[in-house]
Amino acid sequence: MTAVDVISKKRHGQSLSESEIEYFVSGVVSGEFEDYQISAMLMAICAMGMDPRETLALTRAMARSGDMLDLSDIDGVKVDKHSSGGVGDTTSLILVPLLAACGAKVAKMSGRGLGFTGGTLDKLESIRGLSVTKSVEDFKEQVRKTGCAIVGQSANLAPADKTLYALRDVTATVDSNPLIVSSILSKKLAAGCDVVVLDVKYGDSIGRSEKDAYELADMMVQIGCMSGKVYSALVTSMNEPLGDYIGNALEVEEAIHVLMGKKECRLKTVALALGARILFCAKLVPSIEDGLRSLEAKITNGEGLAKFAEMVAAQGGDPAVIYDPSLLPKAKKVVPVTAQEEGYITKIATSDIGEACRMLGAGRIRKSDVIDPAVGLIMKKHIGDSVKIGDTLCEVHLDPSKDNSEALAVLNSAFRVGPEKPTPPVLIKYTLEPHEY
Amino acid sequence: MTAVDVISKKRHGQSLSESEIEYFVSGVVSGEFEDYQISAMLMAICAMGMDPRETLALTRAMARSGDMLDLSDIDGVKVDKHSSGGVGDTTSLILVPLLAACGAKVAKMSGRGLGFTGGTLDKLESIRGLSVTKSVEDFKEQVRKTGCAIVGQSANLAPADKTLYALRDVTATVDSNPLIVSSILSKKLAAGCDVVVLDVKYGDSIGRSEKDAYELADMMVQIGCMSGKVYSALVTSMNEPLGDYIGNALEVEEAIHVLMGKKECRLKTVALALGARILFCAKLVPSIEDGLRSLEAKITNGEGLAKFAEMVAAQGGDPAVIYDPSLLPKAKKVVPVTAQEEGYITKIATSDIGEACRMLGAGRIRKSDVIDPAVGLIMKKHIGDSVKIGDTLCEVHLDPSKDNSEALAVLNSAFRVGPEKPTPPVLIKYTLEPHEY
Repeated sequence: MTAVDVISKKRHGQSLSESEIEYFVSGVVSGEFEDYQISAMLMAICAMGMDPRETLALTRAMARSGDMLDLSDIDGVKVDKHSSGGVGDTTSLILVPLLAACGAKVAKMSGRGLGFTGGTLDKLESIRGLSVTKSVEDFKEQVRKTGCAIVGQSANLAPADKTLYALRDVTATVDSNPLIVSSILSKKLAAGCDVVVLDVKYGDSIGRSEKDAYELADMMVQIGCMSGKVYSALVTSMNEPLGDYIGNALEVEEAIHVLMGKKECRLKTVALALGARILFCAKLVPSIEDGLRSLEAKITNGEGLAKFAEMVAAQGGDPAVIYDPSLLPKAKKVVPVTAQEEGYITKIATSDIGEACRMLGAGRIRKSDVIDPAVGLIMKKHIGDSVKIGDTLCEVHLDPSKDNSEALAVLNSAFRVGPEKPTPPVLIKYTLEPHEY
Repeated sequence: MTAVDVISKKRHGQSLSESEIEYFVSGVVSGEFEDYQISAMLMAICAMGMDPRETLALTRAMARSGDMLDLSDIDGVKVDKHSSGGVGDTTSLILVPLLAACGAKVAKMSGRGLGFTGGTLDKLESIRGLSVTKSVEDFKEQVRKTGCAIVGQSANLAPADKTLYALRDVTATVDSNPLIVSSILSKKLAAGCDVVVLDVKYGDSIGRSEKDAYELADMMVQIGCMSGKVYSALVTSMNEPLGDYIGNALEVEEAIHVLMGKKECRLKTVALALGARILFCAKLVPSIEDGLRSLEAKITNGEGLAKFAEMVAAQGGDPAVIYDPSLLPKAKKVVPVTAQEEGYITKIATSDIGEACRMLGAGRIRKSDVIDPAVGLIMKKHIGDSVKIGDTLCEVHLDPSKDNSEALAVLNSAFRVGPEKPTPPVLIKYTLEPHEY
């Protein structure tokens, strides 16, 4: 077997065997496959696809390319969630403490990634003192004691994915379901959780149709369950930002508001739908409805918020912030973006909103970019809301020492106003149950 | 425009514009496209194809990536031929002098390539003293004076093709018509001839069906003619070696036999069919039939052979060899491969015959391999011939100081004998006329 043989087989549309896929992945890590051969293979996979058996083999081989976390010495069901990325999506910060309060063990390893706003790690780091770096043993010990932890991925988690992801980014081979699925699930498999719920976003403005999102979610649930774990998924709308607060400290603040029971919103709806599904899949509740009730109860009785404070303290952060979010970093200036015409909000360009936040300093283009935890924005209007000229569409939290004109220009054109009230997009479009294998 | 944009467009099956293709090719030469991006693009082209407009743009951009030969200061119609490669195909050595004897200007630049036996350059170099290295000015001067020359490609002829070809070989992206066509025609365009005839081979044993060969020939004729030149093609059989003599000096010897008028054979039939077509396309004769008659006349009156000797002399070779091929390098030992059963030859594994010749030392795997001009074989039986046990199927010319057991084993199983006389494969399967643009 040579690299050319394996590439050629996929290029001609044939299925690869498990051993051929293992040969490819080990060649990626060892360097036996040169970069130009890896990228040819990635493009062949993009063009010819992979069946579920191949995708599972790729996922497993990538997971096994580095350390495999063994969480079996933590009692209870180890659970995790994954979102396919979006704007104003801080469900993790709500869910992780709530699930722990309900008795699940939430062992969450996050990547840092690039994007509109920081990832969950960056958001957490806006809490003073908090660290997301722990040894594997300390991470597991925190999960045992506190019930939850959110830390950065260990350096040797699925190293094959690091190489493949870096190449995909520069060779136009990002948007291939088998490659997306194996990239995400290899890290989940290596991180060792038993139950995982996925939130796959759809929306014109993020370039993924309902159908595409469904297909991706379906493939992830199938492959996840074939791997011997319990996977399920929701397909949810990203036709507008999920939360009203977008940024790093701002998203922590909104999560706290939800955990305090002060806010009913789309963000809470999705977070609790994901959480109820996790509790049900983990057999901690007899039904989804019971799961929703349990989660609401942990908001009402304050145990969710207390668990968040406990987790923050366990990671060196100041738990006082959780009870008083005014202690979070604040932007020096807040300016409104206002409506220029009367009517109804008919569309919100979600990816433009995200891009504007990145320009304000909330996200990264390069790994070396430094995030400003205080900047971002607060949405004041949603799709379907009526607006008058001069109404605030969103509040922009910015650093006045920077030039923010480009970000503001993007925001000014991100809201579409029309004469007729539109039907708001369906928030939770599809629900995908675990497969039995 | 970025590399990723252009790759992405092709990956999604869209047509690339001329400027996008030029951007790609100039990026290949400048290094702006990294190797892994080039190979991703090659695989995307393999999978998604290219329409004729794109293939022409790719061909032109590759031709312009290096020196463009200007032959306009040579009087007359400048002609060339190209064969898609085969075993025992020495049509060039017959055609080049015959066409020059008929008044065409044959300015032939050959690549060295890898393969079963050496290329035309290697065959010529088995004539003592002959050199295939000339400056462009000396090459043109020889064509002006002698009417023909066969030299090695200048180092800077279509450099983009060198990079692409090297990557295609190691990324399983060789068998794509737009890539094959642009690779061959870019060099032909850069070499500056007005009329080109192509010989595209078909045959089970070389892995190209009649249909595939037709499609490739059709695309080459179309793109060649779109480029403003006159291209036509034949699709011919490689179900068995074209000539009876296979090797380097051996193929020179057979070409001399044909030019001496001593041999009627399949090789001569194809050579003259190609030649008549060139004379007709160059408007040197009023019909293909007249072309055939002219070529036969140049054999009969000895002018073709004299022209070969003149060309050899012009390139520093000993013209005496042309009149006495016994002066060519001779193998130290000749052994027969004999029939093990009685019946008819039903199949000959052409690529195995070629591979065996390479093992004997007639061809190269690596550029650094040294060719033995004397080794090879002489076919004694053709498809459809009857054989008795012990009949010689072919004569193997070998170097007894080497281990030739593997080559002999391959040859012993390359001939299939059956009880029924088969219909021999059609030698010239299709004829493709020039397109008008």
